[in-house]
Amino acid sequence: MVVKNIAGRDIITEISGKTYKPFAGAKKYSWCSKVTNLSDALKKCGLKDGQTLSFHHQLRNGDFVINMTLDAVQELGVKNIMMAQTAIFDVHKPVIDFIKEGTVTRVEGSINGVVGDYVSKHPLPYPVVLRSHGGRWAAIKTGELPIDIAIIAASSADIRGNCTGIIGKSAFGPISYSEVDAMHANHVIVVTDNIVEYPCRHQEIQERYVDYVVDVNRIGDPSKIVSGSLKITEDPMKQQIAHDCIELMDAAGIIKDGMVFQSGAGGISLAAVKYLGERLEEKDIVASCATGGLTKFIIDIYKAGRVKCLYYSQVFDDDSVKYIQENLEMPADIGHYADPTSKGRTIDSLDTVVLGATEVDVDFNVNVNTHSDGRMLHGIGGHQDTAAGSSLCIITAPVFRKTNPIVREKVTTITTPGAVIDAIVTNKGIAINPKRKDLLEKIKGKIDVAPIDELKNIAYDTTGGTEELDLGEEIVGITKWFDGTVLDIIKRVKE
Amino acid sequence: MVVKNIAGRDIITEISGKTYKPFAGAKKYSWCSKVTNLSDALKKCGLKDGQTLSFHHQLRNGDFVINMTLDAVQELGVKNIMMAQTAIFDVHKPVIDFIKEGTVTRVEGSINGVVGDYVSKHPLPYPVVLRSHGGRWAAIKTGELPIDIAIIAASSADIRGNCTGIIGKSAFGPISYSEVDAMHANHVIVVTDNIVEYPCRHQEIQERYVDYVVDVNRIGDPSKIVSGSLKITEDPMKQQIAHDCIELMDAAGIIKDGMVFQSGAGGISLAAVKYLGERLEEKDIVASCATGGLTKFIIDIYKAGRVKCLYYSQVFDDDSVKYIQENLEMPADIGHYADPTSKGRTIDSLDTVVLGATEVDVDFNVNVNTHSDGRMLHGIGGHQDTAAGSSLCIITAPVFRKTNPIVREKVTTITTPGAVIDAIVTNKGIAINPKRKDLLEKIKGKIDVAPIDELKNIAYDTTGGTEELDLGEEIVGITKWFDGTVLDIIKRVKE
Repeated sequence: MVVKNIAGRDIITEISGKTYKPFAGAKKYSWCSKVTNLSDALKKCGLKDGQTLSFHHQLRNGDFVINMTLDAVQELGVKNIMMAQTAIFDVHKPVIDFIKEGTVTRVEGSINGVVGDYVSKHPLPYPVVLRSHGGRWAAIKTGELPIDIAIIAASSADIRGNCTGIIGKSAFGPISYSEVDAMHANHVIVVTDNIVEYPCRHQEIQERYVDYVVDVNRIGDPSKIVSGSLKITEDPMKQQIAHDCIELMDAAGIIKDGMVFQSGAGGISLAAVKYLGERLEEKDIVASCATGGLTKFIIDIYKAGRVKCLYYSQVFDDDSVKYIQENLEMPADIGHYADPTSKGRTIDSLDTVVLGATEVDVDFNVNVNTHSDGRMLHGIGGHQDTAAGSSLCIITAPVFRKTNPIVREKVTTITTPGAVIDAIVTNKGIAINPKRKDLLEKIKGKIDVAPIDELKNIAYDTTGGTEELDLGEEIVGITKWFDGTVLDIIKRVKE
Repeated sequence: MVVKNIAGRDIITEISGKTYKPFAGAKKYSWCSKVTNLSDALKKCGLKDGQTLSFHHQLRNGDFVINMTLDAVQELGVKNIMMAQTAIFDVHKPVIDFIKEGTVTRVEGSINGVVGDYVSKHPLPYPVVLRSHGGRWAAIKTGELPIDIAIIAASSADIRGNCTGIIGKSAFGPISYSEVDAMHANHVIVVTDNIVEYPCRHQEIQERYVDYVVDVNRIGDPSKIVSGSLKITEDPMKQQIAHDCIELMDAAGIIKDGMVFQSGAGGISLAAVKYLGERLEEKDIVASCATGGLTKFIIDIYKAGRVKCLYYSQVFDDDSVKYIQENLEMPADIGHYADPTSKGRTIDSLDTVVLGATEVDVDFNVNVNTHSDGRMLHGIGGHQDTAAGSSLCIITAPVFRKTNPIVREKVTTITTPGAVIDAIVTNKGIAINPKRKDLLEKIKGKIDVAPIDELKNIAYDTTGGTEELDLGEEIVGITKWFDGTVLDIIKRVKE
């Protein structure tokens, strides 16, 4: 069919079997400031009952943004919100009240500390879904976890929505977690306490994804957003475990030029990074990359020339925040770091990672989500991702804590399956996953290895064994493997 | 239903009405080098008859990658390929042979110079679809233009696919055009002549999107990839037009602190940038951003402190390539620059842009695609995007070239509709779109304005008017507005 389009041209609407739409008019594009207040932004994004709001956790225990958003939701009288945060902290205790009065009724995201404790005893109508960093990215990308409105905290933003966590009084490091939310959410609200001149000089999230910018007094308490400076554990037992990790790496032949390792901030992991740096120095070795998070310790190793590349996804301390403001190095967002559906991730090249555990079992399964009393107090974080991405995944744990066996017959909850765990380093010996015959061969004669059952027996003999858990039948939460399948179910803890 | 998953846990497959899949096993992720040869990469990507291959044009007239890819396709005996390049140049003359023998039978992308000339006379079975930079990005993003295999030329890449155009012997500037191809194509092949140590220090395209890396001797001829150094036109008539553009901007009140302008490399546009820099200096004004492309001229203005931010999407000359290797400034990929389906683009803030034309008409429609003889010789580029994004879109053109009226009753092909064109600056006067009453008011008494008909009359009187075009009925191509609708149809030129 021939039609005249609005520009006066004769357009054939079907050519070679394909249909074409005639031009119907052009207009100038313009822009206006996206700045408004939170309530207005939520209204304009069409907030309504039952929707899903997402948040990142990079303001950590200093975050004001989740609470202020739920306040605004409550004031608008909207109910049954699903929270899809990357994590929450004790500062988010008010979430308990939002749950009690029905503002929040579902959670798919890490639910930690006091809120986790509450939910463990008072199940929500739907189970809390716990995913790893990479698993969450994939779930949003594939549509398994659709987001209605993404609320993105930023320490600086321009009035058009380009924003960052790198600069500003509440700086916390690059906004690593939220690009997938920004790309896939129906609506995106940036919340900042520092409006900068256009264009914002860093922009992990760009205006192309942003509907509104909310300018608030403070997005958080800077002293709690990043640690002043992280301290290495002073506990000699933990120091010994960290040292033993390095011995194991060395015996396994991993400490060599070009190695790639994860830099963490947990107690023993932090010590292990420091000791690894010392070992690199002693052996005159230069590592290729450190993935994970920045701390003064890993930056010192970098400055000493012992690692060529800081390929980081978060920033843990003041020194590191200041450092990247001057030297950006190589930030890798969580998709680049850990998206299991991608064609290549920074963590795929990990030679080794040192991870913690609340419990481990004789099948090498690891729990980081629940305590032995069943309470869901921690998220998965990058635990699954780095375990599966690394050639040598080392779990560190004491064999028991107080009267509770940590090495045990069965973990209370499976966070990371034994299939991807290579070694467990404890204060009473090192166990190697028997499937890793190659590893056992490499370290033979260099490292004393104990069967995992022996470590369990020490734990049981000393403590009298595990206590029988009397849990309810209601389901509190589920742990998912990063491919979306269910690893385990978490049941209600009786009060 | 309760099932035991592979980790031995009882999983309930339906909870609160939602179904869940039980964990079925975990494995270690690993990686291996993605490096192979082009033929092997194409085979592994499942190349077959009728598929669409995409390319970017940032190696310009020095590009070897399109020809070598089509050579490999031909050797594999695969036919009926659709090319979805961002542009081609005379170096791609072999494409004519690939068309003749059926390797290539469809094109959706800018088709320039000798290949455009050939196709104008020998229509393909489907019309060539011409889109603007932003329109192409949107078409790939929305699925209007699906890509089977994206072939991405990179001047450096690591063996896992992280790659860049910023460094290496064939450096051409950031790979601005291809991220949308990388994200949406079924398969992605990076072609480079410089494999660097992992991780590649710049990475406009990341390994997460890349299937294979092809290591070739040379991706192009560096002397033709970027101009040695661009020269300002020495034609006094063109210089006068460029000067008049600056006078018009100034009269319109646009030359003031915080202004945003486009920096181009075409003959008159380049001169206009230089003269604008001089005017900024004279008036002691500091502009906010320059978008578009980098040249020595705009970098000089930046170094002089007359523009705060280089917000660029391509790099035109040697000096600029070297400059960004030391000072990255703010690259903006084409989606950030011009995606019409986004929530905000760098060009939305353009106060002014100076663009060329092969023809303009009394309705202010502009043609840049065909010459007055009907031959399709140029792409749309950012013409539509910046015209619609800018407050003052200035078209520059002589009223006639030789015996051909450039200002005319009707353009041969509409590239950019008059609705978004504000002014036409010619060697015989300046015409303002009568819809822009505000602009006419602002410049009253400062700039002499001529009715567009008067400019047309000068052209017709001097040349004897336009020649009647004797075109065939077959459709050679279509021009699309960046929203996907059809602006115009290009018909066959008789030989």
